[in-house]
Amino acid sequence: MINHMVEYHRSSLDGVFHALADSTRRSMIRQLAGGQRTVTELSRPFDMSLAAASKHVKVLERAGLVRRAVDGRVHRCSLETGPLAEAHDWLRSYEGFWNQRLDALEGLLTSSPKRTDG
Amino acid sequence: MINHMVEYHRSSLDGVFHALADSTRRSMIRQLAGGQRTVTELSRPFDMSLAAASKHVKVLERAGLVRRAVDGRVHRCSLETGPLAEAHDWLRSYEGFWNQRLDALEGLLTSSPKRTDG
Repeated sequence: MINHMVEYHRSSLDGVFHALADSTRRSMIRQLAGGQRTVTELSRPFDMSLAAASKHVKVLERAGLVRRAVDGRVHRCSLETGPLAEAHDWLRSYEGFWNQRLDALEGLLTSSPKRTDG
Repeated sequence: MINHMVEYHRSSLDGVFHALADSTRRSMIRQLAGGQRTVTELSRPFDMSLAAASKHVKVLERAGLVRRAVDGRVHRCSLETGPLAEAHDWLRSYEGFWNQRLDALEGLLTSSPKRTDG
């Protein structure tokens, strides 16, 4: 079933998974899930320059995960959840597969006779 | 709540998301969800050399997504679902967030007066 699944949004998923492949960017997403943040605020928990933080924000923007509103010198970032939902959907299609494996393992464990007495 | 979540398996998630950030590798995972495949079989749907396919398999292996059993010259690959489940868990923690957004949008749409007559 999974083999014949058509893959939509191929290039967009590339960008989303690439953006997620970095712990700093995942932390930024976590911050943004709490509400709008400026780039300065996003950079605060990390030992990095504003320029370095801004590069990470750009990767998130290109992946469609962050929207940036420019107000003079202040750049306010907010989270766009659509691409996260797409990545989640892709992974969810394999959920059945790993559940099957767990069920099979459980089946094996419960069907084997419990002999501890020799 | 999400802000205070501790992130485990930091480097392992980096590798898993990096491995998923390529449509060829995602297709390979799809093939492997159907059962064991040799590297030759995995390379077949793509216009690429066996060496190029092997590089992709190596990225999947490093991320812990693929186990390779070597039998003479035949390399049999199978899918390891644990890392997929971890990536899925990370994304799932944001599910509540995007559902909230959808609920808020739905609330706005249903509460606004439906006036089409002037």
